[in-house]
Amino acid sequence: MGAAVLLMSMSADGYIAGPNDRPGNPGGDDFMRLHEWYVGAQGEFGRPEGEAAMIWDELNATGAVVVGRRTGEQVDYYGGDHHGVPIFVLSHSPATVDYPNVRFVADLESAIAQAKAAAGDKDVLVHGAVTAQQALAAGLLDELQLSQVPVLFGAGLRLFDVLPRRIELDIVRVIDTPQATHIRYRVRR
Amino acid sequence: MGAAVLLMSMSADGYIAGPNDRPGNPGGDDFMRLHEWYVGAQGEFGRPEGEAAMIWDELNATGAVVVGRRTGEQVDYYGGDHHGVPIFVLSHSPATVDYPNVRFVADLESAIAQAKAAAGDKDVLVHGAVTAQQALAAGLLDELQLSQVPVLFGAGLRLFDVLPRRIELDIVRVIDTPQATHIRYRVRR
Repeated sequence: MGAAVLLMSMSADGYIAGPNDRPGNPGGDDFMRLHEWYVGAQGEFGRPEGEAAMIWDELNATGAVVVGRRTGEQVDYYGGDHHGVPIFVLSHSPATVDYPNVRFVADLESAIAQAKAAAGDKDVLVHGAVTAQQALAAGLLDELQLSQVPVLFGAGLRLFDVLPRRIELDIVRVIDTPQATHIRYRVRR
Repeated sequence: MGAAVLLMSMSADGYIAGPNDRPGNPGGDDFMRLHEWYVGAQGEFGRPEGEAAMIWDELNATGAVVVGRRTGEQVDYYGGDHHGVPIFVLSHSPATVDYPNVRFVADLESAIAQAKAAAGDKDVLVHGAVTAQQALAAGLLDELQLSQVPVLFGAGLRLFDVLPRRIELDIVRVIDTPQATHIRYRVRR
């Protein structure tokens, strides 16, 4: 069975979204600054050049996505398609969408269990700050792939907020590029 | 003239002190977890083995220290001695201490100017979360040397809080060890 991996880009001061995030302004002001490292050889948004390409490839090799309602809503559930895999959206009140790959699940434990089952031996991609905090608190997250961008946002939405206890991690891999420091952690059990 | 360098160890979720920090419990609960990477060949607290030794050596090559009142008080102004260099403590109400190396300065700009003058061509070591935020906001910080420890604290005192604007950084160096990811940033002007 694969791992549940949180994958997020964040500023050096821990913000994953700028101020004023809402539908129509997903990720808030300056959100794209956190994703400039996704840039290919021709300057296009996409698979990055060099070592960070690995992260793009791993992302696209995941077998299912779990995303919070807030994040899901803001990006219109990825238009119903995230590299062709099932998308599990956490929500107590399912929206009506015409996206066959999108399923609404009321609780996180069940969403991650269903996503892991759907993914088989592939990893599950977890997305969203609120979802990340809940998954960490509930012991449902296996790994964190954080891309730390050399900028201080100073405001916005933080990836990490209050947790019920100290959680130890192990550093699995560091990819050092001028655009970002990509750190992969495993949650210690 | 040297650079003003903030040097701090912090958790992966951005805390530089645990809950309940006060005199008698400097850095709060679990504070030492953030400084376990300062461990030498015999397991003693001190100059670390391997590449991280560089950070210890740079710290001890600085020519002056600037520290906030809160941090300064909690550690009793380092007992009056921080590798033998002048210590500038930010405070509007100077304490009475019998430490010849300790000077109280009312404002940050003047404290950093005096520390840079005292340090000559050596760097100035800046310490403390509140001081860091003020120095960043005022454009008085040149570099940040952050040691990110693989642990989520979930509570305590954050290094970064609200800033008046976005501040761009450049990654100068990453030292990748199992104990911590040490990132040195330069503040872009």
